[in-house]
Amino acid sequence: MKINILKTNGNARACLMETPRGKIHTPAFMPIATLGTVKAMSTDELKEMGAEILLCNTYHLYLRPGAETVSSLGGIHKFIHWDLPILSDSGGFQVYSLSALRKIEEGGVHFRSHIDGSMHFIGPKEAMEIQSLLSSDIAMTFDDCPPYPSSYEYTLESLKRTTQWAKQCREYHKKIKDTLQIPPTPPLLKGGEGGLRNSSCFVNHESTQCLFGIVQGGTYKDLRIRGLEELIEIGFDGYAVGGLSVGEPKEEMHEMIYFTAPLLPADKPRYLMGIGDLNDVLTAVEAGFDIFDCVMPTRNARNGTLFTSRGKVSIKRTEYKSDSGSLDPDCDCYTCRNYSRGYLRHIFLSKEILSMRLNTIHNLHFYFNFFRNMRKSVIENTFGKFKTQWEAILS
Amino acid sequence: MKINILKTNGNARACLMETPRGKIHTPAFMPIATLGTVKAMSTDELKEMGAEILLCNTYHLYLRPGAETVSSLGGIHKFIHWDLPILSDSGGFQVYSLSALRKIEEGGVHFRSHIDGSMHFIGPKEAMEIQSLLSSDIAMTFDDCPPYPSSYEYTLESLKRTTQWAKQCREYHKKIKDTLQIPPTPPLLKGGEGGLRNSSCFVNHESTQCLFGIVQGGTYKDLRIRGLEELIEIGFDGYAVGGLSVGEPKEEMHEMIYFTAPLLPADKPRYLMGIGDLNDVLTAVEAGFDIFDCVMPTRNARNGTLFTSRGKVSIKRTEYKSDSGSLDPDCDCYTCRNYSRGYLRHIFLSKEILSMRLNTIHNLHFYFNFFRNMRKSVIENTFGKFKTQWEAILS
Repeated sequence: MKINILKTNGNARACLMETPRGKIHTPAFMPIATLGTVKAMSTDELKEMGAEILLCNTYHLYLRPGAETVSSLGGIHKFIHWDLPILSDSGGFQVYSLSALRKIEEGGVHFRSHIDGSMHFIGPKEAMEIQSLLSSDIAMTFDDCPPYPSSYEYTLESLKRTTQWAKQCREYHKKIKDTLQIPPTPPLLKGGEGGLRNSSCFVNHESTQCLFGIVQGGTYKDLRIRGLEELIEIGFDGYAVGGLSVGEPKEEMHEMIYFTAPLLPADKPRYLMGIGDLNDVLTAVEAGFDIFDCVMPTRNARNGTLFTSRGKVSIKRTEYKSDSGSLDPDCDCYTCRNYSRGYLRHIFLSKEILSMRLNTIHNLHFYFNFFRNMRKSVIENTFGKFKTQWEAILS
Repeated sequence: MKINILKTNGNARACLMETPRGKIHTPAFMPIATLGTVKAMSTDELKEMGAEILLCNTYHLYLRPGAETVSSLGGIHKFIHWDLPILSDSGGFQVYSLSALRKIEEGGVHFRSHIDGSMHFIGPKEAMEIQSLLSSDIAMTFDDCPPYPSSYEYTLESLKRTTQWAKQCREYHKKIKDTLQIPPTPPLLKGGEGGLRNSSCFVNHESTQCLFGIVQGGTYKDLRIRGLEELIEIGFDGYAVGGLSVGEPKEEMHEMIYFTAPLLPADKPRYLMGIGDLNDVLTAVEAGFDIFDCVMPTRNARNGTLFTSRGKVSIKRTEYKSDSGSLDPDCDCYTCRNYSRGYLRHIFLSKEILSMRLNTIHNLHFYFNFFRNMRKSVIENTFGKFKTQWEAILS
């Protein structure tokens, strides 16, 4: 994993990440392909609109169809028909946010599947095995994500676990890369469809997979520093900041964004996890973050909330009933080129699948355009102006 | 509306229908764009796979978004982004099959909307007005469709209505075409979003719209003959057979298909309404029908039932879990070129929108290929062989 800083504008950076599967121009947005598909989109459509990397959720793919199944079908790229980079999260966040029951112990987390109630266990070792089976390009360490608010004591304990697990992830990831043939651990992972039942599937593991560490520490600056330093000592191919946008006030989130970004190694990719509200993105890019993921453009699209150059549009509103104009007159996406607001309203109210498609095309197109223009502004030394302009539109 | 018979093979015909908006090669299959979208598909995808004509449902579009709205947005073609021919049904069938409450009287049918329970009225006059507002290329007469089974007496009474309404449709359709500016009838159509509230919308009416008559008569041959002769006397641009596939045994349906087709004028398009099971299509093409519509390929796709050159596949079956093969090795559709059965099963079970898309692409591709090859067989005088081969696969 190489990252070349092409230009900085204050702390904001325009970089080029080079991976064996393709280049990523940053600041970059990763659409979320939870279960191996960005909802409503084909991968060819995503490529056409400029996506350079997708995010897949380890937790979801582990439960359905199972990491072994993905592996036996040729790995995540072949499985989902996407030959550019893929980042897999570690499953940590979903274990905490989706599972009704979870029990944290030293080696990992016991949790109940949100689908069928079956019991499962994921720890650093399993997270590395699963992501190896998926054969993503960027794997994430298995972390412990404290809820907001959490006491200093709890956050400290949690951070110690995160660091310990990060160390184990690093070791296990190296071991898998070195051998490419590590026997899995059936007793731990036997439950559900996701169980790892035989070792033959490790053949898909690619030795090019790199590993990012995740900085936790809640809203405590000294803990963020501590977590960060411990991760840097272990050494990762990139550094992510997690545990933000979990309920804390925006001011606190932005403070942590400004605080952590400059402390992350400048020569590695900096990834702000789960944040994609464009106001937050502007703050984070200003702070020095490179990559982002969020369900916002895709989920909002399916709910009929559309981003435009003049602010958000709720397409279901009666005023659009007979509106023959395009959704965003400044947009040249497929949706805006071919359909009226009146039609988009009609198919949204009729719950047509095409509505999900056209809305998602538009919102993702909008996001990719936003990121492209933001990058351009960094290169042209006008990021400050870009930020001010968009903050007025987004507010 | 011109139809050129290019080749016959027994009663089977390969024709070319010429309309101002484009040519239709028959035997032709019309995908159903109920509310102005073929579920899960974009119109560009449909065009790419060879669709030459779509069917839109008058009943559904009248209720949502309303014929006036479609008209004010430029008519059905502009509304749905499709510049090739569109056939609109008359709403008659849906009034009978979807509305919980309906009261038939001489001038038409009072019915309750299946969406919001509001009361509406459609008769021959309204059906012509609505279809004029939609600006479809082919309008259908408003008919009375008796349920199966119905007594001879009831079917006769119903047929008399159908003929009377057909006559009124013909007259009213001519009147609209002649004037292009007929004031609508607000008192009758005031309910719901679909009400026709002012006459300004008639500007969209295109004088090229043609009108097909619908032959009813249930399973009584003499009534079919009577209905047919009465329609021919009135004179239409094409003739459809309705009231089949409404619950009668297959043998009876096939008997009526073989009986009615040769009695329809040979120099006009012959349309068998609502029938698209491929076994029935083979029978109907053998009998001499030209055009077909059915929700089967699209609805089955969304239910995970896929047509292949080796028979039907239920994609959810466990046997496909780790199956890396394509759905149909003989198929070159987008789905079969890019995705494994294992992936298709996974996204179907996960209820992903992409599953609806990929399955629909495949099934429609299959249907269009089937129709193309069927047409080829008629032209090459091998339709009998084609029918026998496919009956073995489809059984």
